Formats: sequence, C-alpha cells, structure tokens
Amino acid sequence: MGGGEEEEAKVIRNKQVLARDYISGNPKESDIFPLIIHQAVLVKNLYLSCDPYMRGVKNPKPGRPQFFAPNSPIVGYGVCKVVDSRHPGFKTGDLVWGITAWEEYTLITDTSSLFKIDQTDVPLSYYTGILGMPGMTAYVGFYEIATPKTGDKVFISSAFGAVGQLAGQFAKLMGCYVVGSAGSKEKVEILKNKLGFDEAFNYKEEQDLDAALKRYFPEGIDIYFENVGGKMLDAVLLNMRLHGRIVVCGMISQYDLDQEDGVRNLMQLVPKRIRMQGFQVFDHYHLYQNFLDTVLPYIREGKITYVENISQGLDNGPAALVSLFSGLNLGKTLLLVAPQ
Amino acid sequence: MGGGEEEEAKVIRNKQVLARDYISGNPKESDIFPLIIHQAVLVKNLYLSCDPYMRGVKNPKPGRPQFFAPNSPIVGYGVCKVVDSRHPGFKTGDLVWGITAWEEYTLITDTSSLFKIDQTDVPLSYYTGILGMPGMTAYVGFYEIATPKTGDKVFISSAFGAVGQLAGQFAKLMGCYVVGSAGSKEKVEILKNKLGFDEAFNYKEEQDLDAALKRYFPEGIDIYFENVGGKMLDAVLLNMRLHGRIVVCGMISQYDLDQEDGVRNLMQLVPKRIRMQGFQVFDHYHLYQNFLDTVLPYIREGKITYVENISQGLDNGPAALVSLFSGLNLGKTLLLVAPQ
Repeated sequence: MGGGEEEEAKVIRNKQVLARDYISGNPKESDIFPLIIHQAVLVKNLYLSCDPYMRGVKNPKPGRPQFFAPNSPIVGYGVCKVVDSRHPGFKTGDLVWGITAWEEYTLITDTSSLFKIDQTDVPLSYYTGILGMPGMTAYVGFYEIATPKTGDKVFISSAFGAVGQLAGQFAKLMGCYVVGSAGSKEKVEILKNKLGFDEAFNYKEEQDLDAALKRYFPEGIDIYFENVGGKMLDAVLLNMRLHGRIVVCGMISQYDLDQEDGVRNLMQLVPKRIRMQGFQVFDHYHLYQNFLDTVLPYIREGKITYVENISQGLDNGPAALVSLFSGLNLGKTLLLVAPQ
Repeated sequence: MGGGEEEEAKVIRNKQVLARDYISGNPKESDIFPLIIHQAVLVKNLYLSCDPYMRGVKNPKPGRPQFFAPNSPIVGYGVCKVVDSRHPGFKTGDLVWGITAWEEYTLITDTSSLFKIDQTDVPLSYYTGILGMPGMTAYVGFYEIATPKTGDKVFISSAFGAVGQLAGQFAKLMGCYVVGSAGSKEKVEILKNKLGFDEAFNYKEEQDLDAALKRYFPEGIDIYFENVGGKMLDAVLLNMRLHGRIVVCGMISQYDLDQEDGVRNLMQLVPKRIRMQGFQVFDHYHLYQNFLDTVLPYIREGKITYVENISQGLDNGPAALVSLFSGLNLGKTLLLVAPQ
C-alpha cells in the first residue's frame, strides 16, 4: 500500500475539475469541485479478474464504487505493470495488483488498494486469485472470522469458486473435515479428487438440502463458509452444532432476485449459540503480509492447488464474465490481457 | 453454585430407581436405571417466575428440559427457602434462587443451577428478575455479547420485558442513545417516563417498521437487542450501521408459528460487516458475582428501576403465565407463593 516517505519530493500534482454526480440541466457551482491528484500511477494491465461481486446495480448511489458506468471501462481487480508513476511508493517496471479497469492501460488515481508484487516465482495470474483479493477473503474469513480448530466440521458453499476452493484447503491443512457444494458433477469431482475435500455434492441434484447436509454431517456443522445464501443457508441453520460459526462472505444466490428468499430458521441461533458474521476483505488488508507468509510456502511446497480458468484477450472479456455468473466456469475466472 | 468442600462429610446419599423415558408395554431392564442422589435440597417456594421461554413443546425430546409434563408441576425459575438439605453448599434457612417447580415445596435434585442469596437488603422477588436469570441475560447480552461503547445507538425490542427493561437501562448508564419497542401505549409511556429510554414506540401502531426505525435512528443502529425476530428483525437489518451487532436473546414473535417468518434482508450482513450472535445465559453463570457487583450498587443508588408485576398465590399462576404471552402484563411477571 505505497510507502517510501523518503521519495516524497518527487511527487508531481495533477489538478482536475470533477462533476460530483451526473448533472441534469445547467451545472451549478456546487455540482463541480476541484481535486488535486498527487499520486497517480499509469499501468499496463496484464491480467483482469472476474469476480462474483461484479454485478450491475440498478440505482447506483453517489460515493459507492461502480463497476459498470455507461460507456466506461469495467472496474475490477487486476495485475498490472507500472509504466509511469507519480506516486513515491511505485516506480516504472513495478508489478502491482489492485483495482484497475478493463482496458489496455489505466491511470490509477486511487492507489489505496494497490499492492506491490515482490514474489514472482509463482504465476503472476495468482495475484488475481489465490494471492489477491479472493485469497485474502478466504484467509480472513477462515482464520480471522471463523475461529477454526482442528477437527471442526466445515461446510463450504460455492466451494469451487475463487474463494471457496482455497477456504476448503485451509480447513484441510488445519485438520478439519471439509465438505463443499457446487453446481455441476465436474466441479464436485475436482473438489474431491484434486482439491482434497473429504466430500462434495452437486446442490442442483439434491431435492432436500437438509437431508443432503445430514448425510454429510451426521454430527452437524461447526463452521459454514457462506457464499450463496437463501435455501442453502436455511438448511445449514438446521444442521449447525452448538457454538457454530457462519462466516458470511457473500450470498450469490440472492443477487439477482427482486425479492430475496426468506430465511426461516434463524431461531436456531439462540439454542445453538451461533455466531453469524459478515465481513469485507478491505477491512483486513493490513494482514496481507501475514497472508503471504502463510500461503506462499503452501504454494511452493505443493500443499495447495489452485484451479484457474484463463481466457485470452480483452475481446473475450464479456464471455469470461458471463461464464462466471452462469456457473459454466471451472475455478477462478480471469482474463490474460497482455503478457508481461 | 454450591461449594463448601469442608462440609463434604455430612452428605447423605439417596438411591433411586428411575425410568429412562415413558415405557410402553412390559418394562425391560434397559428401560430402568439406578441413580444415587447425593445432594438434594428440599425447598419452600417463595416466588415463581413467568418467563417467555416457558412454552409447550409439541414433541419433547428425551434429555431436554421439559417445563410442562402431563400432571406434573410446571418447572421454572423461583426464589426459595431451604427447609432441609443433603447438599454441603446449602443449609436449612438459606435463601436460594434457581430452577424449581410450581408447588409449595420442591425436592431439588439437580442443584447445578441453584444460587445462594446473600444480599437481602433488596426485594427477594428481584432474584426472579433483575438479580436472577433475566437480569443475567440482559447483562451478558449487553456487556459480553454486544461489545457496547459510549454513544452507540441501541434498539431493544420487547423493551418492557424482564430482560429488555434492564438492557435498556444498562445502555443508558453507558451513555448510549436507547430506543425500545413494545406492544401498548402504556408500555411505551413507562419506557420513556419511568425507565429513561430516549424514545419508545408501539410496534402495533406502525404500518411500516422500516419507516419507524428510520424516524428514531436517522443515522442507523449500532446494537440491536433482539427479543422478537420476524418482521422486526427484517426491518432492523435495513437500518443497521457498519460493524453493527445483533444480540439474539430470543425471537418471541416466532414461537407460536407453524412456519417461521422468512427474513429477507440478511445480505445486509456483508456490506455492513454485521455480527449476529445467539447466546444462552447458562453458559455465562460464572459471571454471576461480577453481575451482582455491577447491578446491586445501581439498585441501591436508585440508578436502575425495575418494574414487577406480582400475582398472589399459586391459584393465580395460570392467569399470570397466560398474561405474559398475551402481552397484557406490565414488566417482569411473577407469582408470590408464600411470604418468607
């Protein structure tokens, strides 16, 4: 996240005049404001990430990040090479990951989420997934929020996603029993045979999710890594153990509904003393170095496998993003824009 | 919780033969088992407590506590005087509170929830409420689970109940802004004028709970002390602030439904990083002395008010219990069985 106080003197300012929001009618002075950009970085985009949080919002609110604005490049995470820098923490030639745009070159003015990449003996694409935001999400959710211990029974929905596949492997490395759900037979096979999950099932083939969970968790669930919400959450609540923890990372089954599914089994929280905790990975980026210190050795020693689904070129961007939401992708979905 | 190791020598055993469960047909040997009771206490019941958790269960499970068994006295909390003891921690004449039965005298064989009453300069009836299980529930929920701080915006549903009225006053003493909901105009008036709540409203008069909460919490809610569940919880979720905490003490609106209301706004947990935590007071009884050290001075200094609704005599027991569930009671509902 930047740094390099000693280079402060090199900073060059760039003053801009910005509209506060879409302006209707004649602009008033209060609609517009001047801003001095001190620390912009110009980057060449190498890899761009397709993530479940990237969805259109019907009525975007001012001040909220917008991933899709009319006739503007999509905004999302990527791995980039710095081609010019007005920021003391980054210099030409540096590799970085963070929030960029779906285009060949991007002027990144908000560098607060930009991380310098120092370790390049692993695939660079990993910084969109296992070593980037999804990886940090799995790490924070599992180690910081779930308070796991050896022997815990762990259930992960959307288990073959960018976050789920890693959360499951963290749990296995801690000596937990791990079951994942996914949306196809192929995903289930990979979870069991390649990623080391104890069990996995295709939720689309289950008539009764409660019965499916009872089959895989006859003693109940200690930790639920929640990625989907809705009916699955309701079934999980019936199968949680005493003092269970539900780590709410996302609820992708609910994103497209006009009205969200009703969750009826929340009374289970009381007798079972369940903690349900939502989180956002941004709050925990100060742990990024700890995360790297944990995960890089696992990757180098072959203790963690990470499945990527890489499309080639910006022209294939629309198809890659759509495949993520259709569930036809396998593993972490991303786009190779340009070789390093 | 007992004690008095030095008196161990006085213990007298009482061997019994018990049925494991209801027996159908000829008893088998495995249906019956011998048990040695070491530490029974015979008590005279002085006050009996009517609490929201006391509800009939359609299909009681073996091993679970049953408050209502056919032709047996109701089981619940009470304040009692020891008339004979086979337990080294209790002697004749001691005042105790804990789980007893709705009868004049009870042989308490499970003494694990029995507390000796040492402080008698406050009303004895308080040990069914503010100084007993409901008081501990408010204390644990607020101080241990909600992680409150000065200035927090606190919402309490069922705010004039045995737990809610105390949780609200704890929050006021910490310098929080406190709003309560209740089910009648009279309750709302008492919350505002007698118990020091900043605001209170009658949820039955609100067409739109979300709008009501926005009126009282324009900046949102930091802590929700959840006693009711259902529609209120759904409206609260829309009004929680970042890093808000929902302390799930009970969900009384849901107890009598064949199917619980669906809660649709759980996606709020993620962007708002909300923690929702169920708890049971039994897990925290080791804090009982800390609790007394906090609450007794507040009572003696007049900093906390506690409203009781005392019915006289066992004959009025059925009416008292029914009034609690009809919402016609005002404050902590209990029964005076016998003067000390």
